Amino acid sequence: MSITRRAFLHRVARAGGAAAMFSAMQALGLAPAAEASTLPDLPADFGKGRKVVVVGGGIAGLVTAYELRKAGFAPIVLEAAKRPGGRNWSARNGTRVEFTDGIVQDCSWDEGHYMNMGPARIPSIHRNLLGYCEELGVALEVEINTSRSTFMQADVLNGGKPVEQRRVIHDTRGYIAELLSKAIDRHTLDDVLTAQDRERLRAFLKGFGDLSEGNIYTGTERGGFAVARGAGPVQEKYHKPLSLSELLAADLSKGEFYEEHIDWQATMFQPVGGMDRIPYAFAKSLGEIVKYGAPVTEIRNTSKGVRVSYGENGATRTIDADFCVCAMPASILKDVKSNFAPATKAAATAIPMTSLYKVGWQAPRFWEKESNIYGGISFLKQPVDLVWYPSDRLFSKSGIVIAGFNLEYLPNGQPTEFGALASTEARIAASRMAVEKLHPGHGKDLTKPIYISWARVPYIQGATAMTTLPEMLGYYTQLNKADGQVWFAGDWLSRIVGWQEGAILSAHRAVAGIAERVRAEGLKAA
Amino acid sequence: MSITRRAFLHRVARAGGAAAMFSAMQALGLAPAAEASTLPDLPADFGKGRKVVVVGGGIAGLVTAYELRKAGFAPIVLEAAKRPGGRNWSARNGTRVEFTDGIVQDCSWDEGHYMNMGPARIPSIHRNLLGYCEELGVALEVEINTSRSTFMQADVLNGGKPVEQRRVIHDTRGYIAELLSKAIDRHTLDDVLTAQDRERLRAFLKGFGDLSEGNIYTGTERGGFAVARGAGPVQEKYHKPLSLSELLAADLSKGEFYEEHIDWQATMFQPVGGMDRIPYAFAKSLGEIVKYGAPVTEIRNTSKGVRVSYGENGATRTIDADFCVCAMPASILKDVKSNFAPATKAAATAIPMTSLYKVGWQAPRFWEKESNIYGGISFLKQPVDLVWYPSDRLFSKSGIVIAGFNLEYLPNGQPTEFGALASTEARIAASRMAVEKLHPGHGKDLTKPIYISWARVPYIQGATAMTTLPEMLGYYTQLNKADGQVWFAGDWLSRIVGWQEGAILSAHRAVAGIAERVRAEGLKAA
Repeated sequence: MSITRRAFLHRVARAGGAAAMFSAMQALGLAPAAEASTLPDLPADFGKGRKVVVVGGGIAGLVTAYELRKAGFAPIVLEAAKRPGGRNWSARNGTRVEFTDGIVQDCSWDEGHYMNMGPARIPSIHRNLLGYCEELGVALEVEINTSRSTFMQADVLNGGKPVEQRRVIHDTRGYIAELLSKAIDRHTLDDVLTAQDRERLRAFLKGFGDLSEGNIYTGTERGGFAVARGAGPVQEKYHKPLSLSELLAADLSKGEFYEEHIDWQATMFQPVGGMDRIPYAFAKSLGEIVKYGAPVTEIRNTSKGVRVSYGENGATRTIDADFCVCAMPASILKDVKSNFAPATKAAATAIPMTSLYKVGWQAPRFWEKESNIYGGISFLKQPVDLVWYPSDRLFSKSGIVIAGFNLEYLPNGQPTEFGALASTEARIAASRMAVEKLHPGHGKDLTKPIYISWARVPYIQGATAMTTLPEMLGYYTQLNKADGQVWFAGDWLSRIVGWQEGAILSAHRAVAGIAERVRAEGLKAA
Repeated sequence: MSITRRAFLHRVARAGGAAAMFSAMQALGLAPAAEASTLPDLPADFGKGRKVVVVGGGIAGLVTAYELRKAGFAPIVLEAAKRPGGRNWSARNGTRVEFTDGIVQDCSWDEGHYMNMGPARIPSIHRNLLGYCEELGVALEVEINTSRSTFMQADVLNGGKPVEQRRVIHDTRGYIAELLSKAIDRHTLDDVLTAQDRERLRAFLKGFGDLSEGNIYTGTERGGFAVARGAGPVQEKYHKPLSLSELLAADLSKGEFYEEHIDWQATMFQPVGGMDRIPYAFAKSLGEIVKYGAPVTEIRNTSKGVRVSYGENGATRTIDADFCVCAMPASILKDVKSNFAPATKAAATAIPMTSLYKVGWQAPRFWEKESNIYGGISFLKQPVDLVWYPSDRLFSKSGIVIAGFNLEYLPNGQPTEFGALASTEARIAASRMAVEKLHPGHGKDLTKPIYISWARVPYIQGATAMTTLPEMLGYYTQLNKADGQVWFAGDWLSRIVGWQEGAILSAHRAVAGIAERVRAEGLKAA
């Protein structure tokens, strides 16, 4: 092969666009597999004289406008709410949370406290997002997603008393190691393991489960101490292992596997001061490009480009532009008037949304002082099934603890145990009860709850679009195509649904699509 | 039982001292099992008029003096080196590292960089140390001990190419889950598992290993992507699982189990700016109580108390005091002249020391930029078997990476593969090679190595005393008793050897011992 890699990539790019080039780069081992941005490298005057309406000022919309401006386009972002960020929304002192059903909550937490009501974590594999944080000067700190000192609780385990996560994790491992070791000893896996592998696996399992003599699990230091280590003649004692039957009946697998989801693996970050530091940094950079309080009501392809109608102070206004990137949630898109093709409309209507909630409380940091819990998540088998401790301002006096982060409705529309609770008061009480279960006596220390119910947030009305369901593939594919001069963008049009990184990749793809269209028009005109 | 808990505890304390009271508190569930401090609550004038010589200004000595002063004693700390901290020593610009064999290194890293040459981590279960950090105003930040993006490398695995830790961890889990699942299906564990437990365990294993249909392990998202997730029609691909035989042959268990050692479990901390912020904070508080450059040469029990001899600017000086707390390393204690009882001397002489080393380099943060590695540790099967990335000042331009942290000699005196390397240059080269193995092309980016070899640090001459070896129990017990008016203290006289928390607990025990002696003398006098 006589052509250089660079020349080869240029040919690929000419022939198939940025996405093809990226794939080729991956194939050559030049692009890391952790990111799949198709953002083209465009000259600063590439889009000169072309106007683009970006509908929605969430991360996808903000990134779209930010990148289009870099390439010389004239973007304008129409955001329905009075703030940027969409689901990237942090509650803090002064935040008003209004639901579509009229419920209003005003946050009055102490200065400096916040709850990231939407996204709250940035895994280190989300490189595009990390890149924007660096570019925009958003300071990051470690988000502690896992701490072995957090609790797990199930009524059928340990008499219902919470146990430290380290005990559940390591007792479970111990039993698994013992059982597999026994199966090997009984020669029941000889047909699938060589003698050497059996020997090595047995040795590995001894370490994996911290097994005692005879490859029996009898407890481990990894689970912590019933009698603590000290100086002098103190002899520490491990905890008596939890019962395997109880562990299995409790089924704490959600908590046990949580840290290993690819997007929840250490190392993770959060912006110092709240996740919304990211959209605010974009918004600051974009300045007047972003128009707030401007809900879009109609998007039409026209013979010359697009016409977008939106409300502003009660009046309806229209903008004509060359292109549109529609970065609204699927839940809102479906109700926007348009002259989209039937296939586009059908897709927009078909995609169901999840309905996540969170409840945050201000409280003194009893979890740090009394239980050595610094960040991380405790898991319970209760209507509110997790308690998430703050990673910010550790060792300070008080903090925001999130008691409850899960679905209110199942994909089939049935309410969850939490969602079935009749009133906001009952939900708040269930949240408090989860903390009380884990930290007896401290339920009463929780103050000033803020409850976010994403299905009821105006202009959002849902948490994540379920585009990864196998039956959604056709709709996902459809909306990943432009309809006339309109591109669609959002985390839900990527394979990282529910994450800002997905929104960014989707925005990049929309920008790439527009760039290709501009290039194609140029070729046609020439 | 008609007496109150408080009254009961007072009785226990009178009868058996602080340690007994603490045990009783633990039994009553009043003291958390994570700490076992026996520090008595003494009035501020308790030790009035009593002088205590503390030998050694490491953490044990500093804490001893700090607590004795609180209780009205007049402590004086004699420290051989020109700085406080002992093994808690951070190299930074201007640090001179001198070995007993004459090797001298001067550190000239950029301002703000440091390497914690001794202790480098504070687990959140080390509450006494966290308490002192709070009391002394030492700011802490998260120390990232585990990151799934770090690498593992063994020549027999994956053709010697490093793989992300997440692949090793999750492929191993996948195989374990598949094999145990298979053993259950073959009814070979029916005698030890009920039918219900078998059913539940199978379901658990499916999640634990992320098994495919038929409970076969075919790869998992948890291991990351061979083809990354993107927006649009990109279809991500998991990595093909590593070979089980190769994984077993590689034996990466050190790295796989590392994060689960009780003292290495998340959440962990480090002081902002270097671990030595802790001894410097103690030293600042103690002021002139700490005398530097004052190596102790002799400790004698006298009829009235103790007489301690030390060198100062070439002269020998003596101090008479009521009590002495000897907080030297075991390696130094054995050579100090004394009139200790034969059993004490025998114990001091018998305890072997480990010989840890570290090599730190200044380098641009290629591990962050190119490999998404933010903190954590990569593991290799090479003479230098780990590379530890900085948790401080993430996202900045350069940082200190530690390539190599392990033993130079085995307990039997035989050199390790690293220790057998003939010269400092060869060891530095091995350190660089470890980074090159993991980050090809970047070995050359490492600059200004600092090599600490604890066996050769004056007045320390070793890393950790091996008092937890079963055959050491007698000596451990012996040195945990006072010899006349002399108490011994150090991490090695606790059950948390090699950790500052152990040094603190031991210091507390020495203070408790002195307090009991003072009380006993008071009773005798009365």
